[in-house]
Amino acid sequence: MDIQKLIDQIEQINSGLYQKDFLLTWEKSESALRRVLQVAEILREMRLQNISPKVYDSGLAVSIFRDNSTRTRFSYASAANLLGMEVQDMDEEKSQIAHGETVRETANMISFLTDFIGIRDDMYLGEGNKYMREVGAALDEGFEKGVLPSRPGIVNLQCDMDHPTQSMADLLHLKQQFGSLEELRGKKIVMSWAYSPSYGKPLSVPQGIIGLMSRFGMDITLAHPEGYGLIPEIVDIAKNNARNSNGSFKIVHSMEEAVKDADIVYPKSWAPFHIMQQRTELLKTGNKAGLDALEQTCLAENSKFKDWEYNDAMKKLTKSQDALYMHCLPADISGVSCKEGEVNGAVFEKYRIKTYHEAGFKPYIIAAMMFTNKFEHPAQILKKILERGTKRFGL
Amino acid sequence: MDIQKLIDQIEQINSGLYQKDFLLTWEKSESALRRVLQVAEILREMRLQNISPKVYDSGLAVSIFRDNSTRTRFSYASAANLLGMEVQDMDEEKSQIAHGETVRETANMISFLTDFIGIRDDMYLGEGNKYMREVGAALDEGFEKGVLPSRPGIVNLQCDMDHPTQSMADLLHLKQQFGSLEELRGKKIVMSWAYSPSYGKPLSVPQGIIGLMSRFGMDITLAHPEGYGLIPEIVDIAKNNARNSNGSFKIVHSMEEAVKDADIVYPKSWAPFHIMQQRTELLKTGNKAGLDALEQTCLAENSKFKDWEYNDAMKKLTKSQDALYMHCLPADISGVSCKEGEVNGAVFEKYRIKTYHEAGFKPYIIAAMMFTNKFEHPAQILKKILERGTKRFGL
Amino acid sequence: MDIQKLIDQIEQINSGLYQKDFLLTWEKSESALRRVLQVAEILREMRLQNISPKVYDSGLAVSIFRDNSTRTRFSYASAANLLGMEVQDMDEEKSQIAHGETVRETANMISFLTDFIGIRDDMYLGEGNKYMREVGAALDEGFEKGVLPSRPGIVNLQCDMDHPTQSMADLLHLKQQFGSLEELRGKKIVMSWAYSPSYGKPLSVPQGIIGLMSRFGMDITLAHPEGYGLIPEIVDIAKNNARNSNGSFKIVHSMEEAVKDADIVYPKSWAPFHIMQQRTELLKTGNKAGLDALEQTCLAENSKFKDWEYNDAMKKLTKSQDALYMHCLPADISGVSCKEGEVNGAVFEKYRIKTYHEAGFKPYIIAAMMFTNKFEHPAQILKKILERGTKRFGL
Repeated sequence: MDIQKLIDQIEQINSGLYQKDFLLTWEKSESALRRVLQVAEILREMRLQNISPKVYDSGLAVSIFRDNSTRTRFSYASAANLLGMEVQDMDEEKSQIAHGETVRETANMISFLTDFIGIRDDMYLGEGNKYMREVGAALDEGFEKGVLPSRPGIVNLQCDMDHPTQSMADLLHLKQQFGSLEELRGKKIVMSWAYSPSYGKPLSVPQGIIGLMSRFGMDITLAHPEGYGLIPEIVDIAKNNARNSNGSFKIVHSMEEAVKDADIVYPKSWAPFHIMQQRTELLKTGNKAGLDALEQTCLAENSKFKDWEYNDAMKKLTKSQDALYMHCLPADISGVSCKEGEVNGAVFEKYRIKTYHEAGFKPYIIAAMMFTNKFEHPAQILKKILERGTKRFGL
Repeated sequence: MDIQKLIDQIEQINSGLYQKDFLLTWEKSESALRRVLQVAEILREMRLQNISPKVYDSGLAVSIFRDNSTRTRFSYASAANLLGMEVQDMDEEKSQIAHGETVRETANMISFLTDFIGIRDDMYLGEGNKYMREVGAALDEGFEKGVLPSRPGIVNLQCDMDHPTQSMADLLHLKQQFGSLEELRGKKIVMSWAYSPSYGKPLSVPQGIIGLMSRFGMDITLAHPEGYGLIPEIVDIAKNNARNSNGSFKIVHSMEEAVKDADIVYPKSWAPFHIMQQRTELLKTGNKAGLDALEQTCLAENSKFKDWEYNDAMKKLTKSQDALYMHCLPADISGVSCKEGEVNGAVFEKYRIKTYHEAGFKPYIIAAMMFTNKFEHPAQILKKILERGTKRFGL
Repeated sequence: MDIQKLIDQIEQINSGLYQKDFLLTWEKSESALRRVLQVAEILREMRLQNISPKVYDSGLAVSIFRDNSTRTRFSYASAANLLGMEVQDMDEEKSQIAHGETVRETANMISFLTDFIGIRDDMYLGEGNKYMREVGAALDEGFEKGVLPSRPGIVNLQCDMDHPTQSMADLLHLKQQFGSLEELRGKKIVMSWAYSPSYGKPLSVPQGIIGLMSRFGMDITLAHPEGYGLIPEIVDIAKNNARNSNGSFKIVHSMEEAVKDADIVYPKSWAPFHIMQQRTELLKTGNKAGLDALEQTCLAENSKFKDWEYNDAMKKLTKSQDALYMHCLPADISGVSCKEGEVNGAVFEKYRIKTYHEAGFKPYIIAAMMFTNKFEHPAQILKKILERGTKRFGL
């Protein structure tokens, strides 16, 4: 692909990304979202053409993972490394955080020579995004008061509300699968709950999907059993987005009904909002017995909905019997990773490689978020990188 | 600031830093200490002016943390990264150390392509500094016998005796706050014990402070309740230093008395020397019951001294009622991180940002220790870096 | 040493290393093994002469350690860093592997911007090497289907069958000690079992040694008590290798008999093959009681062979009473790291520094495996590196 042409397509407008944290897609303008996708595509193409986009001679990218991670951890490390930064993991168990240190203090202490902080904090409803903003406010103060030589950018690597590096990678996947963002207009995407033998999966992926895909004129169907709702305020945001982008948004309580004529299906388990609320309270008070009881109740409740599996019968109902299947991975695959799960083994296998492609955009999305945070005029810098022509590998 | 001018101020004398480990400030000449500060200031200024001081195209900086760390861990990583080295943590739990491997063997095994080893080992009185020297002797042998291509430098990231990266960062903070090292002459600094609800804090910070600040003609007051003494040999070193530098040194057993007319107050908890001695024995023998009993005794003892809090009444006794408050962080702040602690919440808040500035010198101090260990004539190299003009960030 | 001369010695033939994983030495041609040694020597010499062989401007080298490691972990990190890659450890405990994710999925998820994956998996007979091939097949698919921009190379950092980075480092040590590979022809090397107070040590080192040293016309003696055999198929490979290279191979059940007139002695403990088979079954089923019982049986059995210690009496039987002692380290040293062990303290001490030299080749062997995997014509690239003349350290 001609990288220069891709660079030329970047609009000369203020995207509002410069020196701003990337916390929620719905806080960003449409031009900001487009720009992140464009820069991600260019960085990916540079990698494919063995052109190094390194822009840091040194620098740290701190990661704070308050929950397990594979894909996002490696994507963040890859993005940082590609641009020239070294990842330094903030392992709270090896730190002195437990000594009662305040967030604002820690945020400054790890940031003296830091350019980015990536945070995953998705366990507690009402907490994760708040924590990121608390870190951000501390960094603002530190920079303003001359403690920090620059204001490190924050990348939300999944919170209780959104999972923007995931949803933006998903969007880039859709852009590439359908040819352009314009082609997504009028396409039907189904974000559907699906059965899983585990419990307590975060709400951030389905929320991220409906919050973002509703920006581009798509017809969104959110499907889940009654009682399995998402955070109401975010559902409202998605509704508004759909209205503003001339798309549509509806909620149904049947997977069959939802997937009819769908262009895209995203079947994924999550815990009901009201269960997550109870769970958050129990986690905060360390109520182990309560958590165990809640888990049993929830698993029993879930087991009523084992027919929410995306399988061949469901697939046959979709557009041309071949809707694009999406998942953030790892999926609970019936007969592969569990007995009964979110998706039938054969159906998953048909789209498996596509889900890998989908995941493969994440490193470039994160790198693009970093790039657009640090450079006000990314096109100019990308052009210089192209002219410089440093090889990523080889002499 | 004009970096060239700062470089010109570096004296053309042999500081004795070249190819020497940095283990204790009192082993270093005054010119060595001055040089570390100067190089740290220059590296800091380069970072502010976006000039990259990278001098390694590759290289490892190994870290061995035998106790938790946030500030020092990130400072060490930042320093290594700034100069071009990658941090590789030696996690003893993931290694084969437990197999009975000797220190001299491990020291060599981790050093084949290593340029620095940073060590924190502050748990056992009489052990930490000894361990660093054992590692150093092993590296000497490995280098001499051709096992190692170069002799990695050792940086003491806190031991049982000293915490030189902390005290040197503190000294640089004082230099900047008061204008010059000369201005510190005759200033009164109080290193005071303070109450904390925790127990067993290391002695290395107060020892490091009295051992270093006594080199520059300051009037040192060490304040603590009776029975809360430091290692006697180090107190003697501080006394001698004070005498040699035309400063003064005294010990008092009242915080009120100590802080009168003080220019600088450093209120911080530590465990009494004799308790640390008992604790070390109990730790060595793995006597869990004994440790618990000792902790209870010590906490009960501590609780008699809750009035050793640095608060507004204390502050009013200081020079212009506004002595510079210092702390290595995290502080035990009454009403913030604990009920009753080392410092009153409002007083801490007044100097909070200054303590962040204080902490912010540590990465540059460590980088300067590395730089002066590896380059016999740092001024020449710094000049070349300036001429090279590589940007740390951007094209 | 003249690097240009070393480069000129690299033959212009197809070694078969390009774009191939390094999993077992006996899968590689003799010219491939020679080439790895040559490139390793050149990279080592460049490091000694302060020439940077960095060929990556960015890139990740992932490590997966399913067992503890010090030497190999730091060697892998050093090799990656020397060539310009950053190590990213895949800590399975911090990942979502436990969610039932498949190997083929994980392999792709960690590889989007990855150039190498180093794997240690030596706990289960029949599993480690298989796992590496499973990862390799997944990477093949990912690359073929366009998921991965390039096919990351795999380096076996120890499996159930072989420990090629160890045996190749050992071979390079022998090459340097005896002057050339040709000089090894007809030399007698004894791979001998030795007593250790621990149990369950992997078979991969002795297997790796007999599998590799038999390629170069050496006279191999494998010595162990009856019942302490290695994997029979690998012993057969060593026999065939010896026949094909005009060397010899025999098995004896007495250390005294084995070491007579030996040029080289490698005394090291390992668990009997049949015990490892039982252990593997018990580990798979999580049979803790069974494992404990097996350990007791095995330790009791081992204790009958405490006279399998390499000591002065043994050494006196060797060629000129001074056979080269080798060990992969850490050794169980009688009177140093254990009461009774694999080697007598004084004998070990005599060769201690040589074992450090032996270990010191590993980083360069790994770097050479990486280099020859990525460059079809390494001599050309090494020549360019020499001409470029970038310093590893300094300005």
